[in-house]
This record gives sequence, structure tokens and C-alpha cells, in this order.
Amino acid sequence: MDVGFIGLGRMGRALAACLVRAGHTVRVWNRSPEAAQAVAGARPVPTAAEAFAGDAAVTMLADDAALRAVIVEGGLLDAPDRPGLHLSMSTISVALARDLAAIHERAGVAYIAAPVFGRPDVAEKGALNIVAAGDPGALGRAGPLLDAMGAKTWPFGPVPERANAVKLAGNFMLVSAIEAMGEAAAFAEGHGVAGADLLDLLTNTLFASPVYKGYGASIAADRYEPPGFNLRLGAKDIRLALAAAEAVGVPMPFASALRDNLIEAIAMGDGDKDLAALARVAARRSGRP
Amino acid sequence: MDVGFIGLGRMGRALAACLVRAGHTVRVWNRSPEAAQAVAGARPVPTAAEAFAGDAAVTMLADDAALRAVIVEGGLLDAPDRPGLHLSMSTISVALARDLAAIHERAGVAYIAAPVFGRPDVAEKGALNIVAAGDPGALGRAGPLLDAMGAKTWPFGPVPERANAVKLAGNFMLVSAIEAMGEAAAFAEGHGVAGADLLDLLTNTLFASPVYKGYGASIAADRYEPPGFNLRLGAKDIRLALAAAEAVGVPMPFASALRDNLIEAIAMGDGDKDLAALARVAARRSGRP
Amino acid sequence: MDVGFIGLGRMGRALAACLVRAGHTVRVWNRSPEAAQAVAGARPVPTAAEAFAGDAAVTMLADDAALRAVIVEGGLLDAPDRPGLHLSMSTISVALARDLAAIHERAGVAYIAAPVFGRPDVAEKGALNIVAAGDPGALGRAGPLLDAMGAKTWPFGPVPERANAVKLAGNFMLVSAIEAMGEAAAFAEGHGVAGADLLDLLTNTLFASPVYKGYGASIAADRYEPPGFNLRLGAKDIRLALAAAEAVGVPMPFASALRDNLIEAIAMGDGDKDLAALARVAARRSGRP
Amino acid sequence: MDVGFIGLGRMGRALAACLVRAGHTVRVWNRSPEAAQAVAGARPVPTAAEAFAGDAAVTMLADDAALRAVIVEGGLLDAPDRPGLHLSMSTISVALARDLAAIHERAGVAYIAAPVFGRPDVAEKGALNIVAAGDPGALGRAGPLLDAMGAKTWPFGPVPERANAVKLAGNFMLVSAIEAMGEAAAFAEGHGVAGADLLDLLTNTLFASPVYKGYGASIAADRYEPPGFNLRLGAKDIRLALAAAEAVGVPMPFASALRDNLIEAIAMGDGDKDLAALARVAARRSGRP
Repeated sequence: MDVGFIGLGRMGRALAACLVRAGHTVRVWNRSPEAAQAVAGARPVPTAAEAFAGDAAVTMLADDAALRAVIVEGGLLDAPDRPGLHLSMSTISVALARDLAAIHERAGVAYIAAPVFGRPDVAEKGALNIVAAGDPGALGRAGPLLDAMGAKTWPFGPVPERANAVKLAGNFMLVSAIEAMGEAAAFAEGHGVAGADLLDLLTNTLFASPVYKGYGASIAADRYEPPGFNLRLGAKDIRLALAAAEAVGVPMPFASALRDNLIEAIAMGDGDKDLAALARVAARRSGRP
Repeated sequence: MDVGFIGLGRMGRALAACLVRAGHTVRVWNRSPEAAQAVAGARPVPTAAEAFAGDAAVTMLADDAALRAVIVEGGLLDAPDRPGLHLSMSTISVALARDLAAIHERAGVAYIAAPVFGRPDVAEKGALNIVAAGDPGALGRAGPLLDAMGAKTWPFGPVPERANAVKLAGNFMLVSAIEAMGEAAAFAEGHGVAGADLLDLLTNTLFASPVYKGYGASIAADRYEPPGFNLRLGAKDIRLALAAAEAVGVPMPFASALRDNLIEAIAMGDGDKDLAALARVAARRSGRP
Repeated sequence: MDVGFIGLGRMGRALAACLVRAGHTVRVWNRSPEAAQAVAGARPVPTAAEAFAGDAAVTMLADDAALRAVIVEGGLLDAPDRPGLHLSMSTISVALARDLAAIHERAGVAYIAAPVFGRPDVAEKGALNIVAAGDPGALGRAGPLLDAMGAKTWPFGPVPERANAVKLAGNFMLVSAIEAMGEAAAFAEGHGVAGADLLDLLTNTLFASPVYKGYGASIAADRYEPPGFNLRLGAKDIRLALAAAEAVGVPMPFASALRDNLIEAIAMGDGDKDLAALARVAARRSGRP
Repeated sequence: MDVGFIGLGRMGRALAACLVRAGHTVRVWNRSPEAAQAVAGARPVPTAAEAFAGDAAVTMLADDAALRAVIVEGGLLDAPDRPGLHLSMSTISVALARDLAAIHERAGVAYIAAPVFGRPDVAEKGALNIVAAGDPGALGRAGPLLDAMGAKTWPFGPVPERANAVKLAGNFMLVSAIEAMGEAAAFAEGHGVAGADLLDLLTNTLFASPVYKGYGASIAADRYEPPGFNLRLGAKDIRLALAAAEAVGVPMPFASALRDNLIEAIAMGDGDKDLAALARVAARRSGRP
């Protein structure tokens, strides 16, 4: 397929490379040209409009503001060469996803929400889990692209923003797992048990899953740099989850506690560290250095 | 070895049967004789003192009060035939474990704390994870018993109560996982996504671990009976964790939120349901039936 | 002075009447003309622009969206007859207050933020407490208006949005007081003590202040209609406080708990009742009807 | 009346002096004789039994353990000279109060629970608020003593432990007020408003009550020594409130948040400072020194 790819952060580059590897023709574009790095086999184009064209366009941008700026304020949906399909993979608010679905419908461009689970190193191997929702026909057409970028695509029906709700729910559970490990480790240390020993036991038995093993290893080693996914982005996702929960009348006490603790972590200077550094809040509160 | 086993609840019977299967000579005793069920190949004895004797005695009782009543108030440590080793497997408070360690030392009985992770059906297969702490020599002598009862023993050093701290930390993480799934499912439902679909995705990818799969399946099916581990016992463990955390100056905001929610669940009549019924609190708060 | 008044809800009408009583010439305007009620002695004008003129214009609108729509999107700051001074009395976000201060500065209109404490019945008596911040010269010119509308004006320096931060902090403390009374009453009832008796004691001794007496009386009588200040508006103010706190890196665990409980109260159908109905959440959670 | 007074901390001495001033004959006793200070006009006696005698005995001790040790374990209820009436004024658990009521009934000693609101300086002026519950006849006989010690006695019926529940509910509201002021002050400071200015406004208007003015002044001045009521004791009262709430199935999310924050305050070294130092937790979490 003839694909345009917008957003060449580490995640975007990994996904664009997957598309190239699978034999698709890929045009790439990034907002800040100086940050744009080459994707071998893909053709850089000078404007967003040239990327937002062809059989399908894929976007992987940092947040609501970036996606809105490029697509909506950039007027791309009015461009004559607009693509038949927009595969929107950024982690964004449910509200923006709903708006975008409506705007795309008016413009006659199929809109598929397809956020992903997995860190950039997983993306590089094409091993992400992709959550996809949108018009069934369009989802079918996007199949080869989704297959190229992820290990598995989990369909969540015809309403695009539901995929974004699922993504936020997953990230909420992920940050909850980190907080639980942080509190458990602080508790153990208070009783003379090394947090690393506790986490070694638990993440190899009851909690032997990717999230616990990955973040648990960081907490056990008390090592949060370089960040795989930084704490400030985690705080953003919890903010989005709380806003989306409030919109549908769902209280989330764990998410509220996470929000407070993430704000404290940022106030203490850990915003640019890995999200696992949230565990330092529990340690600090118990008077440990 | 010649072993006495005290406490024939479902967990205790499973463990006693493991010891019989491994070729040990096992005497068994239960507080309420009417609740005592036969353990094939084990010899029932009429008094606790006859069970608390031999090479080793194993206890698996419901809570602090039961263990204290049988061992301390029952005067078993003064009995002439007291065993060389007491393998204390109940989930009890860190404070009681510390007291018991001191009392046993005065009585000249080695005290090993050896709480377990896993439900009764896992115990029946001899597949539990055992957390053990106590005098290294005694731990060595207990080895054949531990090997008979669990898939793996995780040693946590010479201070017995540390094993109990580890057990409470693990149960705290487990209840946290349930709460996180409950909130995430309520959030998803609010956005038109079936909680079961969300949990199917997450417990087969990022959270593909025994705890998430097991409790997630209950939440997805909204089925909490019969209980594997009842909610009231989960509430007790969180209370023990909070008390032990306070004793060493560790705040645990997630544990505090869990405590509130478990009290609410019990007030709503779910105390005797499976611990996974904690997820109903989040659903109810969002106005779902 | 020649004053325009925009926003004729119950609060706005009370304040406009105070200005009339003090001898000022008052033009009044409301967005939805059908909701506009006459203010005796004030002259209704057909457009917002005619109200946003003269020596000073006063605005008392429901929320950010209303204020932004009328003033900014309505283009009033570009009107040739724009007033010398804008006294902005609505409870709005700190972020919008900051934006408005900058926009007014560019338009050459002095901007005074002057949110108030007190319910409409207090406003009718001219007995509000007004929190005012902005350019000292403009504050001086606004003095006669402030004196006419409130019992006392509390100056908070030259930066307008700080008055809004103070207002949100006060409302946060107010909702916290209600929650504390609600939990205390549920606790007392659980022990066989009537919540009304408990609150009678406490709001006449340690907590003998207007907020506790007023809201305490509602909780004691379990009567939440008609609303003095509805729960949904209280939820909005906590949301604004949390957003403003996050913007400056301040975690507020009580505000987070309030947010969850207010969402639950709204989900249970109490959004249009008086804010004191927040106390029903604690009662309901403890299983009381 | 002929009165024995047990417990000569600062509060006990103030109350015993009130009784002397009112013309009663007062014998006094303290556990640690070296800490006992003279109460002018009262007669020190060498044993608790000599104080627990006469028309009435009054106890004002530090906590459950102290009261239990002196009265129950000290065997005073079996003494031949035991008094007709025991006025129990300590802040103790609801559970202990219930036990004591039963034990006194068996011993034929009327038991009145009569905890107080107010700091020692208020007690010295005889201006406390006393919450009293117990047998109506005994309450009538205790009237002259209660009148001598407090400005007003608030009766709460015939069940003694209900007075203790009321006391704990009041202290919970008090600590909640401090937390709310602490978070509000941190929020204000984050926006460039002095916390002292904010509290000056609010504690003189909406929150113009003794608790807010007293603790608010400490927070405004950031001065927590010498302690009027130390933080560790406040933490104890919240622990008692949570236990009593759990016993009757009442979740208290604010109390849970307070518990976490008080543990953190103690971990940071503020346990012996005034309870108002709880406000430092919010300040510290926002990164302020």
C-alpha cells in the first residue's frame, strides 16, 4: 500500500520501519524537521499534506495538542489528496478521539483509532499489541498495515474512541501496578526485607507478567534512567483517564491516588525519569533516602 | 519424618495430604472436631498436644486469635513432648510472628515462619510458593517438609516475621490488582466497552500472570461464588498490612483505599463472596446495577 | 458610577440590586433573555456590548465557558465603548483568569478579579466577602462598587488570577468540611448516635462557623432541596482547584477524595441537590438507606 | 463531694484544680510519682486504690493501655473501698469503653464516659465541653463534678461508649480541618499567595471557629512548638476512629488519607510537634522547603 506516516519519534520510526519491511511504500514527515531521523527505505516529504495522502495515513504523535495542530488546525482534512483512511495510533483523550471521528466522517476519510501497548523496543520487533476500533470495512482495509506493525490486533468494534478508552484503562492498570510495587517494596524495606528480594519473588510467581517484570526490575535496581516511558507522560495518561472517567460518571480512587503521587514525583524532580520512578514516592514518604 | 499437623481447613488438609504422599508419618488435629475431615493416611489425635510433638509440628490456622489460642494459651510450648521444630504457615500479623519467635526461643523450639502463596486447589497439587524464614539450621531440617508441600521455597533469612511481612506485601499487591481491574472495568463499561473484553485483552498481554488471569476471569464473568478466598479474609490481610506498615512508619495510600473499599463491600453484603467481588464496589459507585 | 452588569442569575441580580441601592446607574444584560429577570431600578439593555461599557462593567457568569463566550468570543474588548474597568466576579479557572488579564491589558481595559464568598441570600444583604486582586489604581476606582456589593473586600495584590486561586482554595475547604461532617455523621450513626446530635454539638463548639453551621444543619436534617449551591457546581470547583494545583505541582489528596465522592454523588442522582448532599455518599457506603 | 483523681498530666492537673476550686475534697494519684506535680489544695495519696474510692473517682489517662493497666489489671474494681461512680474522661477506644462499662457493671460501680473537647489552657479555665454518657442516675450524681470541670456538658444517652465515639468523631473533624488548611495553604503558595494571608481571610469569615483559628494561626506562622496537642496523639486518635468505624462497617476515606499523612509526618520527624505540623506534609510534597 501507499502509506504516509506522520510523527517520527522513537515509536513512530519503529512503526514506519515495520511498514517498509512489510513492502509498503512509505512517505514520512515530522513536525520539527531537525528531530526527524531517517527511516531507511522511507521517503521524507516536506509537508504534512504530502504525508496525509495515499491509500492510508498513519499518525503517531505525542499528545492531543500535537495531533490537533497537525490534522485539524493544519487543515489536512480539506486537502484534495487526503487519504482514504487515517490510522490514528497516538495515545490521546477519548474526547478528542470522538471529535476526530466526527470531523473525519464529514470529510469522508475513514477514521480508525489504533493505539498500542508496548514500549519502543517492542515496536521495533513488530511485536506490539494494537487495539483497533472503527468502521469494519476500513478496519479490514487497514489489516495489512496493522499486521505489519503489531503482533496482534485486538478489535473493539465500530466506535473509534472506545479503543482510546481501552488504551487509557490499560495504562491506568500499568501505573497502578507500579504504585503497588512501590508501596510493597517500601513496606518490605521497613521490615528489613530488601525490596529487590520481594519483587524477585512476586514477579516470578503470582505477578509473572511483562509489566511487573519490566517495571519491577527497574524498581528493584532503583534505576530509572534512561527512561523507557517517562513519568510525565504517565501522569498525562492518568489525567486523561480521570477526565474520561469523570465524563461518564465513574469514580476511580486508585487513579486519584496515582495522580497525587505523580504530581509529587514531578515536584521532586523525577518527571523526566522512567515511570517506574513513581516507586520513589513511597520510599521517600517512609523516610528512606 | 514424624509430623503433627494442626488446622484442617481446606488448606490444611491439602498440605497434610502432601506430607502423607511424601512418605511422612502424619498426626492431625483440628480445633472443632466436627469440622475436621479425614486426611487419608494421616492419624487423627484427640488433643492439640499430641499433634504438637514429634520431629516437627506444622500449623495452618485461620488467624492470629486461633494460632494464639492453640499454641500460647493452650500451653503447648510447655508440654514435655513439644516438637523440635514448629513450621508456622498461617497468614498472621507481623507482630504476633515476632512474639511467637521470642516465645519459642525461650521454650527451646525452633520457629520457622512459612506462609504460602496460592489457593487451596494449588495446594492440593503441591504447587504452592512457600516463603520461609527462621534459623538456618532449622530451615534445613524443615526442607523435606517444605519440599513436600510446595513447588518452591523462597528463603527470606533468619528472622521469622520477615516471611510474614512478605506474605502481607504479596496479598496487598494481589488486592491492589483486583481493585485496579475493577476500576478499569467500570471505566470501560462507562465507555461502552464490555469489562470482560477489556480484561481478556489485558490479562492475556501486559498482565498475563496467575493473579490477573484468575481474578480477572471472575470479574469478567461477574461470578463470585463459591469463594476461593473470601473477601472478609482479604480485608483482614489488608488490615494486618496497614498495621505492620504503620509500625515501621510506611504510609500506603493504595492499602488505605483498599481498606475503605473492602469495608464498603462488606457493608453491601459481599463479605462471604470471593475477594474478586471487590470489583463490584467500583461498578456500584458508577451507578451500574 | 455608570455601571454595566452582565449575568443575571440569582447571584448577579442580588449584586446588581446592591449597586442600584448604592446610587449607581446600572445597565443590565443576560445571555438568555428569557431567564433575565428585572432588577428594580436597573435598565435592561439589548446587547452585551451596551452593558460592557461605561465607567465599569461587572460580570457574574456561571463558568469559564460562559465568560469566555460573552467577553472574548463576543469581541467585547474590541468595542469602541468598552469600559475603563472590568470587575470579573465569576468563579472561574485560574488559567482563564490569567488569560483574561493578558487580553484586557492588550485592550487597555483594567481587569480586576473579584470572586466572592457567600450564598445568594448573603449577597442580597450586601454581606459577601469579596476577594479582589488587580492593578492598585483600578482597585481604588472599583472601591465604591466593591463597598456596595460586599461587607468587606480582602485585597490580594496586583495579580488578578491570585484572587481566583484564593476563591478555589476556600471552596475546597468548604467541600472538605462537608465531607468531614458526612463521614463523622455516618460514623456516629454506626455507633447509635444520631448524626444530628453529633453535628449540633460540634457546630456549636469547636466548629461554630458559618460554613459548618449552614451545611451541618442540612446534613442533620437530611434535607438538600432546594439547593443553595448545587452539588454539580461544587464538583466543578473541585475540578478547577485540582487543575490549578496540578499546574503548580501541588498534590491535594483531600481534593482527590472529594472529586471521587462528588462523581459518585452525581452518578447516584444528587447533582442538582444542595452541595451538602455529598454527605449522603458516606451514609450510603456504610449500608444505611 | 469526696473525689479521687487519677492521672496528673497537664490536663488532669487542670481538672483536679477545678474540682478543688469548686469545694470538693480531692485525693490525687499519678502512675509515675516523679511526674506527679502538686495540685494545690488536693491531697496526694500513695496508691491508686486510695484514689479509686469515695463518692466518685475521676480518671484522665493517656491511652487505652494506661487506663487498662491502672483500673483493670490493677484490680481496683475488686477493692473494698471502690467508689460509687467512675467518671472516665480519657480519650480511649470505643471497644475499651464498652469493655469497661461491662466490667464496672459486674463490680457494681457506675461507669460514666466523659471525654472532653478543649486544650489544657481551656481546661484550666474550666471552659471545656464535656461529652457524657452513662446511667442517667449516675450522670445526675456526677453533675456537680462535671459542672466544676467544664463550661457545658453535652449528654449522649445511657450507653457510655457512645460518648467516646462522639469524641473520636470530633477529633477526626479537627484533624480533617488541619489537613484541609494545609492543602489549601500549599495550593495558595503555589500560586504566589502567602498561606498566612489565605488563612487570615478564611478563618475570619467562613471558618471563623475555634479550631480553625487556633490551628490556622500555627500553620500561618509555621510554628509547631511547643505542642498544645502533639501529632503522635492525633495519629492515635485517627487510628482509634478508623478501628471503631471498621467495627461498624463505615468507610472513612478522609480518615484514611489522614492516617497516611500522619504516618508520613511522624516518619519525617514531626511526631512530637503540635498536630498542626500535619500541614507540613502538603507543603513538603509540593517541593517547598
